[in-house]
Amino acid sequence: MQIILLSGGSGKRLWPLSNEIRAKQFIKIFSAENGRESMVQRVLRQIRETLSAPVTISTSRIQKKILRKYVGAGVEISVEPCRRNTFPAIALTAAYLRDVQKISLEEPLVICPVDPYVEDEYFTAFEEMAALAGTSNLVLMGIAPTYPSEKYGYILPETKEKVSGVLEFKEKPDAATAQKYIDAGGLWNGGVFACKLSYVLEKSRELLGAASYSELLENYSALPDISFDYAVVEHEKNIKVIRYGGAWKDLGTWNTFTEVMDTAAIGDVQLDGTCQNSHVVNETDMPIIALGLKNIVVAASPDGILIADKHQSSYLKPLAENIHRQIHFAEKSWGTYKVIDVGDESLTIKVTLTAGNKMRYHSHNFRREVWTIISGSGRVVLDGEIKTVAVGDVVEIPVGAKHTLIAETNLKAIEVQMGRDISVEDKILWED
Amino acid sequence: MQIILLSGGSGKRLWPLSNEIRAKQFIKIFSAENGRESMVQRVLRQIRETLSAPVTISTSRIQKKILRKYVGAGVEISVEPCRRNTFPAIALTAAYLRDVQKISLEEPLVICPVDPYVEDEYFTAFEEMAALAGTSNLVLMGIAPTYPSEKYGYILPETKEKVSGVLEFKEKPDAATAQKYIDAGGLWNGGVFACKLSYVLEKSRELLGAASYSELLENYSALPDISFDYAVVEHEKNIKVIRYGGAWKDLGTWNTFTEVMDTAAIGDVQLDGTCQNSHVVNETDMPIIALGLKNIVVAASPDGILIADKHQSSYLKPLAENIHRQIHFAEKSWGTYKVIDVGDESLTIKVTLTAGNKMRYHSHNFRREVWTIISGSGRVVLDGEIKTVAVGDVVEIPVGAKHTLIAETNLKAIEVQMGRDISVEDKILWED
Repeated sequence: MQIILLSGGSGKRLWPLSNEIRAKQFIKIFSAENGRESMVQRVLRQIRETLSAPVTISTSRIQKKILRKYVGAGVEISVEPCRRNTFPAIALTAAYLRDVQKISLEEPLVICPVDPYVEDEYFTAFEEMAALAGTSNLVLMGIAPTYPSEKYGYILPETKEKVSGVLEFKEKPDAATAQKYIDAGGLWNGGVFACKLSYVLEKSRELLGAASYSELLENYSALPDISFDYAVVEHEKNIKVIRYGGAWKDLGTWNTFTEVMDTAAIGDVQLDGTCQNSHVVNETDMPIIALGLKNIVVAASPDGILIADKHQSSYLKPLAENIHRQIHFAEKSWGTYKVIDVGDESLTIKVTLTAGNKMRYHSHNFRREVWTIISGSGRVVLDGEIKTVAVGDVVEIPVGAKHTLIAETNLKAIEVQMGRDISVEDKILWED
Repeated sequence: MQIILLSGGSGKRLWPLSNEIRAKQFIKIFSAENGRESMVQRVLRQIRETLSAPVTISTSRIQKKILRKYVGAGVEISVEPCRRNTFPAIALTAAYLRDVQKISLEEPLVICPVDPYVEDEYFTAFEEMAALAGTSNLVLMGIAPTYPSEKYGYILPETKEKVSGVLEFKEKPDAATAQKYIDAGGLWNGGVFACKLSYVLEKSRELLGAASYSELLENYSALPDISFDYAVVEHEKNIKVIRYGGAWKDLGTWNTFTEVMDTAAIGDVQLDGTCQNSHVVNETDMPIIALGLKNIVVAASPDGILIADKHQSSYLKPLAENIHRQIHFAEKSWGTYKVIDVGDESLTIKVTLTAGNKMRYHSHNFRREVWTIISGSGRVVLDGEIKTVAVGDVVEIPVGAKHTLIAETNLKAIEVQMGRDISVEDKILWED
């Protein structure tokens, strides 16, 4: 068995903690032995504790480095050249397993989102799904619904047995229709599929016109933006569903997100004794005081502050999409950056590099920069000249000068950017 | 008639917008012709629109420069050498009017807090009070109560006439007792007194042992920390009260503060259509989104974030007092400073000087600093050497070096402070 985890895109439904760079699976909400744990880390830990199957994560180019930082070594990462829907992503990953990893065509795959909040039983079911993949073309996991949700697709099984054939698939319904599906034994489609590796490659050849890794990679941007459900699952006749009755949550809104928090507050927060069913996640360095809140979620990051009634929090997306300012905090493979001041023709950033890391060697056409080292030591390369730097050193980088910063210890610097057209686009990369 | 406004101390009851440096009277909450207006500005405008009497504001040394910035010229400011209660402050101001301003002993004074939220009628009543000051030693304003408040002292008048003698004063009661006072015709004591200048000086001589400006100033720290009410008003037999029935609010808690806001949101805020009776004041540059809030106040500044049920907001003080970090934003006579990053052995500040202003010439024993000019131009003095600076210039200030920054235009700089013991106390002032 091979497990493919789909590390989905970014979104604004958990603004200000998720954004174009940071997807929700990277938010650290769970208490763990060493500090806090994110969804992707929790899922990988659960897989390791319940199964011995190798894991490959399919993700976008933009997420690759941050993902590697979160999952460490021991997991394969298959990178989409650009964002497409789940069918191209699954096809590319299957072709990668076949052509690069030389996995047998007979090998069962279990494909699953990277961030379900579930019990271990969910992952042990993967073994059963993999075994059934020899008996049908496709095996789905059906989640036992807990309420008539309008957010999920429904699978109508032929019988009420644990493993059953599939009568029909239903798109996201309204609540009344959802209740009818539930009364008829309907299950949520949680996006978990099992099949043989050969099956994905056959469908890829048939529907995308190619099944080799090199071809798919080369033509990726021309592939249709289509989901695996829509392109494959809903047309398959030889299909089974296996019922999962354990806890399952899709942490897609602040409301569900706070349901799985194991503490009412994360970060510098004081909640008074009259707060009820309220949660505060504070990723800023500003203190928060909360008094008398009922059913409220508060989330604060350098990108903004959300205060929402929990139920109403599911209507966040359009308001978050009104906000167009640049991202103020991002994790990078080499460390983090945080925008700490925005001026008319300046931008001030706190750059944190972890020991042994460096920025890429680069230059800017429209801005000069000043670095002041506030912690640690390392080396600066400026137009080919190498210089060691430590706390208190100042480096002035003229417009056009090639530069990089290399951290020997953990290193922090204040970077002041100055110019008329400051933009993340103004970055020319050079060979070291 | 001379008006004395008492500009009270700072407090934490409107945290994070009021703090040790910024008192609540400086928070800009009202829409005005040119931007926004604070309480002290509103009160001075109302006085100018209704009366022609000169105004003297009694304040602390720490507030003097910021107060001058808010009130402009045309108002006298009497500065307490250190904070004492209202009796020493009133005595010192009266002595200042007599000895420095040469005001007649017969001149009526009206003494009033700097920040009541009232209608113009309140100020026109000052004329009547001043006229009555010839007929009794002391004239008080009694505020017609709107509910049995436990927060105010009560005045029990002899009659229900507009002007009456006083039967008795009552300390802050519980709600039931307050209701009894109200049923008996009791009025709130809003801290407005009228009397002749000579009366204050007599009381000062009698109770504080001095009545000249120089003596009071010199011995100020030794004067008792006692209120005018307690020391003088409650012992006076020849006293009248004049009834004021118009709107009156003491903006002492977030709940009352939001009652007078003329807009639901100040700053970068999106409130969705399901918010009710909720107010957001955002003084940060981070966007705020509020969804489905009912009876909630949100206040955000670089010093912190408050989210409170409006009723519960009156219990803020003890929680705000738990926060001991340094103030992150302050207005100065020369401009503003804002802490934008706090490191283990560094502090980064954005300094904004308005054109024509300068810092005081100073040095530090325990930190070096780096200034990067991000906007405007001016001059730097570094150990006696003068240098012009403009955008992009970097100035390195070693430990012990005397330095100042002089703004020719409006000027902004990022100041990185580095050292083991960074503290506002580490500042040695020098003659220019």
